[in-house]
Amino acid sequence: MNTISSFSGMDDTICALSTPPGTGAIAIIRLSGDSAIEILNKVFHPVNKSVKVADLKSHTITLGIIRQDNESIDEVLVSLFRSPHSYTGEDVVEISCHGSLFIQQKILETLTESGARLARAGEFTLRAFLNHKFDLTQAEAVADLIASNTRTAHDLALSQMRGGFAARIKSLRQQLVDLASLLELELDFSEEDVEFADRKKLIDTINSLENELSQLANSFRLGNVIKQGIPVAIVGKPNVGKSTLLNALLNEERAIVSEIPGTTRDTIEDTLTINGVSFRFIDTAGLRSHSGDMIENIGIGRTYEKIQESTVILYVFDMSSITAKDIDELLSDFREHIDDPGKHFIMVGNKTDLMVEVPPHVSRLFDIETVFISAKRKENINLVIDSLMRAVNIGEIADAAIVSNARHHEAITKTLSALKSAGLAIDKQTSADLVAIDIHSALYHLGTITGEVTSNEILANIFGKFCIGK
Amino acid sequence: MNTISSFSGMDDTICALSTPPGTGAIAIIRLSGDSAIEILNKVFHPVNKSVKVADLKSHTITLGIIRQDNESIDEVLVSLFRSPHSYTGEDVVEISCHGSLFIQQKILETLTESGARLARAGEFTLRAFLNHKFDLTQAEAVADLIASNTRTAHDLALSQMRGGFAARIKSLRQQLVDLASLLELELDFSEEDVEFADRKKLIDTINSLENELSQLANSFRLGNVIKQGIPVAIVGKPNVGKSTLLNALLNEERAIVSEIPGTTRDTIEDTLTINGVSFRFIDTAGLRSHSGDMIENIGIGRTYEKIQESTVILYVFDMSSITAKDIDELLSDFREHIDDPGKHFIMVGNKTDLMVEVPPHVSRLFDIETVFISAKRKENINLVIDSLMRAVNIGEIADAAIVSNARHHEAITKTLSALKSAGLAIDKQTSADLVAIDIHSALYHLGTITGEVTSNEILANIFGKFCIGK
Repeated sequence: MNTISSFSGMDDTICALSTPPGTGAIAIIRLSGDSAIEILNKVFHPVNKSVKVADLKSHTITLGIIRQDNESIDEVLVSLFRSPHSYTGEDVVEISCHGSLFIQQKILETLTESGARLARAGEFTLRAFLNHKFDLTQAEAVADLIASNTRTAHDLALSQMRGGFAARIKSLRQQLVDLASLLELELDFSEEDVEFADRKKLIDTINSLENELSQLANSFRLGNVIKQGIPVAIVGKPNVGKSTLLNALLNEERAIVSEIPGTTRDTIEDTLTINGVSFRFIDTAGLRSHSGDMIENIGIGRTYEKIQESTVILYVFDMSSITAKDIDELLSDFREHIDDPGKHFIMVGNKTDLMVEVPPHVSRLFDIETVFISAKRKENINLVIDSLMRAVNIGEIADAAIVSNARHHEAITKTLSALKSAGLAIDKQTSADLVAIDIHSALYHLGTITGEVTSNEILANIFGKFCIGK
Repeated sequence: MNTISSFSGMDDTICALSTPPGTGAIAIIRLSGDSAIEILNKVFHPVNKSVKVADLKSHTITLGIIRQDNESIDEVLVSLFRSPHSYTGEDVVEISCHGSLFIQQKILETLTESGARLARAGEFTLRAFLNHKFDLTQAEAVADLIASNTRTAHDLALSQMRGGFAARIKSLRQQLVDLASLLELELDFSEEDVEFADRKKLIDTINSLENELSQLANSFRLGNVIKQGIPVAIVGKPNVGKSTLLNALLNEERAIVSEIPGTTRDTIEDTLTINGVSFRFIDTAGLRSHSGDMIENIGIGRTYEKIQESTVILYVFDMSSITAKDIDELLSDFREHIDDPGKHFIMVGNKTDLMVEVPPHVSRLFDIETVFISAKRKENINLVIDSLMRAVNIGEIADAAIVSNARHHEAITKTLSALKSAGLAIDKQTSADLVAIDIHSALYHLGTITGEVTSNEILANIFGKFCIGK
């Protein structure tokens, strides 16, 4: 069912700028395909005249001049990777040139004049997939890796790129293949009434598969927040110091600045990376109700929606003015609306600087995680950060199989649904050939994840989102 | 007089991102210095376990993992260049990683933790200069090459990078060295009255050097416009179609667009690259005087200044309405103010579409280059372009020695001034030791161009303008 041959232009030799667009010390232009070395030979003239381009060995670097119609364009370093030992599996040439826009453009022009065509988005990685250098989940991880700007997103992408997730899916699919074989066997012998014992085994296997797939499907929530950032709502009455807390958190983060241009925090003022985890602070402007009623502030309407979207809720209160009644209301509201095992609720007692003594009724909050800070004086902000980190508890994700890709999540969901249908059919003593249809549907959906089953649409959809040059 | 040893931190191993900042398929991080391979060995783990980093050969590429504290950061390709066969002349490692900001930052962090320090702007090229990989003019040409966005600027930088200009300067300096030797000889024998014959020879050599250096000094005008763009004034009475002409020229240019992001024309609406030459259209808004008097329009005040700044003047007139009197005025004004051999004046007869027949008096303009167009209908715009190209007559600059750098121009001017002073001193029969002072001053200034004579200030000034990573 693989559609390699039907993908158009796959025999062309392609070229593209692979480094970020713009001017820099160095730029890399990549060339891949059957004619890569032949095209290189037309345009590249080694400084050492005795060197022949056709004889260059794989994984070596050669200094020379790129010429267009006998005019020198640049002195470059050429790295050669011979098929199959290259990124795409084809012959690959990487030209390292001076990073002016003019030179980048001229070299691409010279290559296209000599028989290459400009690569489409993701086409190098598509070819790597088609040449079995890696599977679809690994190809998708390449794009995720390039896009990842936090440690956790990076670790997740790197783990997926290195094939851990693919191996897990392939092992599940092998169990499904075995199941299908059992069914086929049964179909062959169906007139001889040997089916019963096998049905028990079928059910057990299906249950075990459903179990594993459900775990994976559930991991998508974590995987998605790792990629998109963990939604955090900072809520509380007006003037308790919510903005001061956010600024204090941002301030802590600003201390960890990088020397590379472009790594500065998102312009969206309230996305923040702490210890490699991205937090997305949800706009709580709507929460700044002028009603003094805490329940109204937390429990209803837009406020409630905001809390629904969040994984973590930081509830800020003013230590210097909170009353016993406030705490009663808060606790009852918490039990009614927020006590959700999927959410983390952290009480932040602010304005310790204005407080004479700890109000005795505050101790009633201690069933819920509570920290005491002075956002204004930036005191104990690290305690809030520790709580945030504990709340998300991402831990060591390098080896865990976590679904972070919506396409994979959808395929797993469809696989699960087909398996459930198969289970029901078996329960109802439906004939084996009908059960086989469900199992094959499950096999199909699971196969789309790694690309054992694929289509032009799936591929175009995946690789169209890549950048040019990858 | 070379100051290699006094430049601080030159024994450090340095690292920097060498590709443009931002996210891309690939990024390159460069490492250079005595400890480059030792540092690589700490952080890089070849996929092929039998490969030892210390044994890697020069000009080879190795696949492996970069780790920080046992955590994988990325799968990378490492290119190794052993001293002296590298860009800097030191051991150089280029790490080709996935182009995410996170990875770029992490790899630099790992390298600095392992003993490297972040490179200063231009430090790789500075080291190449200090290690005699090339001279100062070539180092400066590297920066020019990266910054060049037109064919002519590129050709000029490439030619200079390849040493043509340096060779010319060195040959002139050799003649000066010989001259100084003659003088030393004379000083040795000064009591024996053998000086007369030598003085004639001295004067001849000085004249010949002055001649060559003057040519170079004069070439700066061309070199500078190649780098900065050729200033063109479009002048003429109101409503003759000056803006329409500029738009038509821009339109022609827009047809030659590139597929690389970032190559689009400057946002300054009136800079235009035609056939690889950059033209800078000078704002002629000030010329749109409401006075109908052509002389006032061209000859005086701000208009005249604008024309002074320009290398090319496109004088636009309306073919359908120009009178014999207009032409009289124009010609007299031209002779008085504009007939400068350093400037190119092109008459552009516009609105041929509105013209019934060519006004007979127009033929009196034919001593001046004249083209007839319809800017509105975009007819004969190519004739204007041909005229512009002929006017600047840049021709083949690849082998010409053209001064394009203000520092070089200043040094040549100072050399000339010292030589003139020496010539006068010889004429006045001044004693040889005073002449020798002038000759040594000339030698000093000429030596600063290629860097045979240099100082920390000169170097800091030159390399401080480079980008980081080069």
